Amino acid sequence: MSDIHSFAIGIATQNSKHEVIEVFYPAPRLSPSQDISKALRGVFELAENETTTQLISADTAEKLAKEFAAISNFDLSAELKLLASGSPKLLICVITKDSAPTSIAEVFLKLHLLSHRLVAPHGVNLDGMFGLLKNLAWTNKGPIELEELPAAQITARLNGELLSVDSVDKFPCMTNYVVPTGIRIADTARVRLGAYIGAGTTVMHEGFVNFNAGTIGPAMIEGRISAGVLVGANSDLGGGCSTMGTLSGGGKEIISVGEHCLIGANAGIGFPLADGCIVEAGLYVTAGTKIQVLDIAGKLVASKKALELSKTPDLLFRRNSITGAVECVPLKQSISLNEELHAHN
Amino acid sequence: MSDIHSFAIGIATQNSKHEVIEVFYPAPRLSPSQDISKALRGVFELAENETTTQLISADTAEKLAKEFAAISNFDLSAELKLLASGSPKLLICVITKDSAPTSIAEVFLKLHLLSHRLVAPHGVNLDGMFGLLKNLAWTNKGPIELEELPAAQITARLNGELLSVDSVDKFPCMTNYVVPTGIRIADTARVRLGAYIGAGTTVMHEGFVNFNAGTIGPAMIEGRISAGVLVGANSDLGGGCSTMGTLSGGGKEIISVGEHCLIGANAGIGFPLADGCIVEAGLYVTAGTKIQVLDIAGKLVASKKALELSKTPDLLFRRNSITGAVECVPLKQSISLNEELHAHN
Amino acid sequence: MSDIHSFAIGIATQNSKHEVIEVFYPAPRLSPSQDISKALRGVFELAENETTTQLISADTAEKLAKEFAAISNFDLSAELKLLASGSPKLLICVITKDSAPTSIAEVFLKLHLLSHRLVAPHGVNLDGMFGLLKNLAWTNKGPIELEELPAAQITARLNGELLSVDSVDKFPCMTNYVVPTGIRIADTARVRLGAYIGAGTTVMHEGFVNFNAGTIGPAMIEGRISAGVLVGANSDLGGGCSTMGTLSGGGKEIISVGEHCLIGANAGIGFPLADGCIVEAGLYVTAGTKIQVLDIAGKLVASKKALELSKTPDLLFRRNSITGAVECVPLKQSISLNEELHAHN
Repeated sequence: MSDIHSFAIGIATQNSKHEVIEVFYPAPRLSPSQDISKALRGVFELAENETTTQLISADTAEKLAKEFAAISNFDLSAELKLLASGSPKLLICVITKDSAPTSIAEVFLKLHLLSHRLVAPHGVNLDGMFGLLKNLAWTNKGPIELEELPAAQITARLNGELLSVDSVDKFPCMTNYVVPTGIRIADTARVRLGAYIGAGTTVMHEGFVNFNAGTIGPAMIEGRISAGVLVGANSDLGGGCSTMGTLSGGGKEIISVGEHCLIGANAGIGFPLADGCIVEAGLYVTAGTKIQVLDIAGKLVASKKALELSKTPDLLFRRNSITGAVECVPLKQSISLNEELHAHN
Repeated sequence: MSDIHSFAIGIATQNSKHEVIEVFYPAPRLSPSQDISKALRGVFELAENETTTQLISADTAEKLAKEFAAISNFDLSAELKLLASGSPKLLICVITKDSAPTSIAEVFLKLHLLSHRLVAPHGVNLDGMFGLLKNLAWTNKGPIELEELPAAQITARLNGELLSVDSVDKFPCMTNYVVPTGIRIADTARVRLGAYIGAGTTVMHEGFVNFNAGTIGPAMIEGRISAGVLVGANSDLGGGCSTMGTLSGGGKEIISVGEHCLIGANAGIGFPLADGCIVEAGLYVTAGTKIQVLDIAGKLVASKKALELSKTPDLLFRRNSITGAVECVPLKQSISLNEELHAHN
Repeated sequence: MSDIHSFAIGIATQNSKHEVIEVFYPAPRLSPSQDISKALRGVFELAENETTTQLISADTAEKLAKEFAAISNFDLSAELKLLASGSPKLLICVITKDSAPTSIAEVFLKLHLLSHRLVAPHGVNLDGMFGLLKNLAWTNKGPIELEELPAAQITARLNGELLSVDSVDKFPCMTNYVVPTGIRIADTARVRLGAYIGAGTTVMHEGFVNFNAGTIGPAMIEGRISAGVLVGANSDLGGGCSTMGTLSGGGKEIISVGEHCLIGANAGIGFPLADGCIVEAGLYVTAGTKIQVLDIAGKLVASKKALELSKTPDLLFRRNSITGAVECVPLKQSISLNEELHAHN
């Protein structure tokens, strides 16, 4: 066990007031070894629970590079490359304890930890992050403060260039920071930094993954994974399907999708879905939807709210196309993903 | 009152035939003061209702800059910066009367007026605009005529570069022209120039806003606002929800959404929604949908078409999950947006 | 008839091991004339059914240019321009017989043939293509091998640049290769190379077209056209509507949409839709949905599965908003597209 929660060396973007507004950490580290921890604590003279974020001077970079070079059994090539660069925007963030973040650099480190799959969704303290992050213009020239944008746009145009503003948001696109192994994301604009995309996951053009949310393992995602939602291995979210979030408009129940589930195209859930369940295409089941529970012979055995079924596996949810009632029936066979589509990520 | 409707100085893009195909106006002005109006009329010798669009020579630019500099209480820094540049593509558009536009430069000025929130949707004459605007390739190098695109693509590739064609459309992305204050737009490809995005509005990745449409004030938009549709303050459009447009496939009724409304995820409306209404997730209510109107005790009191309810506030629309009937019931409490999400735009 | 299926000259992207990972062919040719075929067979000494993919040396380029220049009635300007460039990454692919592809360059040629509208969807053999194509990072600097991405990202950042990773996929965006005439695509990230977009088609922001799928003629596409799905002329796919694919989660039935159809917003189909049919907004009809078939007077005449109605034209599918039953009724008038929207592509 390390006595440091996490650390990373990155390249910061500053606004015209020299405030750090964004950081790219190529190789964030969770629970670094005692050797690394000792080196960090030595160079930065950290108190026990002190979290630090600082720009690194050339002197400190050299000192740190020397300490790191002496540590064996640890691939530090990314760090050493950065330290050797002598960039004036080199920044280190060392988090000793997983408290609520207090700076943009810390929030970015935690979002990196999620997207590098070093911590699972809900595995790191993000309290108050919305208030810390800046709403920025994410452009083809990198992030720009909104107040500085109009002048930058005029300048670019006068130079015959286009300043393309791809997003105005507090969160950047994940893949400009990291592409974890074994995944495909057809339209990266729809996956925020802080998403956790499990190995073997394909996110198609209509898929979406918010921060602190994602897939545990292989999955086909053509629907929307709201903030906080976790999808189990070998599940399939059909085109345009919805998982209700807790941030806006949704309920208080944190939604999840079990393993081997299928949510059909344009369907949606407002309750946690147990393993092996199917929701028919086009059917939205909220937590309070009253469900006619049928047995394998099609006989009505109970009437329950969807939320009460959130722990029952292997159910098919459908709307009876003759009576209009929402029903569930037991399923015999579970779902398997199309092997050809997923074998080659 | 000004005797000039609007004017702006911009930087034009021309095709190889030197035709103006697009204009960027950093600071469009509605109803300029008499002083400015007089200066414009003087320099360009405008007849009373004459609208003019012209490229500005260095001489004219100097003349205009001198006139503008003498006017107090008017921030002309953007205009003067442009004028001083003496760019060969400097263009002025002065609209004296709000008639149907007759040039690309005029249409672009009117779209800018909307997105700068100087006029509200439906507040400016756009008749015949589709026929004026060119279908262009919007690339990382700016807009390109489609006939000139193949040669540009080959040239870029031979130079080891990528010419990225981000859109083939008559309308560009709004944020490459203006980002009004107090908004977030997660995926800017989904908001066209000419959209009106109210202060306090967040447009999430699945949100979409067409031209001549938008939000009046704070709003959470994760659904689609079709051309012409207006959304009232403090309303929430859930992920993937639809507002029926009048351009294609939709009806003739212009749709609007009142204040403090919630349209659930994957739901939709084909009729104007009054203040304080909720449409349940997954339910599409068209103008002609027959609705069982219930009282607060759940008793059926009437059967109406949705369109007949377009002026009744505080209704919850849902599909009864046992009978399959579409019902509405009176609501007690209205909707409020998540403060934490919206306080920091 | 040519004895060569197709050929093209393109510019290849190679990874650091000098393997071809992607090819841009500006002017692919289907069934080239006997003269061209003879020239190609001569220069490359092809055996009868031999398919070849090779990088072209400056010598070969000169030889080929000489042969091509002698052929009349054939516009070879794109090829000759490429050949004259003497780029070290110039590549030719000659497919003599339409067998399953064996290289990335062949797959790319076939995807080009589809998007150039030289072959219709299902008109070319793509067996095993998923296994051949590489999962790449599609960036603002072109495609990059995923293993080479982290180093490229660090280098870009240290140079003060952004390496924007727009997609991580096996398929690139179509419009970076070709924009066929007479179309609009509002958000090009949603149309893959290999899509077939008919003249007169508008793909709006919410539209999507997969490879080996598309529209035959004029169409308004605001919904999703899954792999393999064909949409007939003059049809309208409403915002967010779904056509069920066969690759993942869908059934085995290949879906198609007839001519003059309208699929409403957020609706969906899991069965082939015959000419002149309408599916009401928000209604998902799967192949197995039981449909109450009504006559023109509204009298129930049969109860059928949707799949059994896949050859019956001019039906309106709707869910009765009082009984909740899915019904179909005969339609009198067929659908026509909004002329103003489509006349100016």
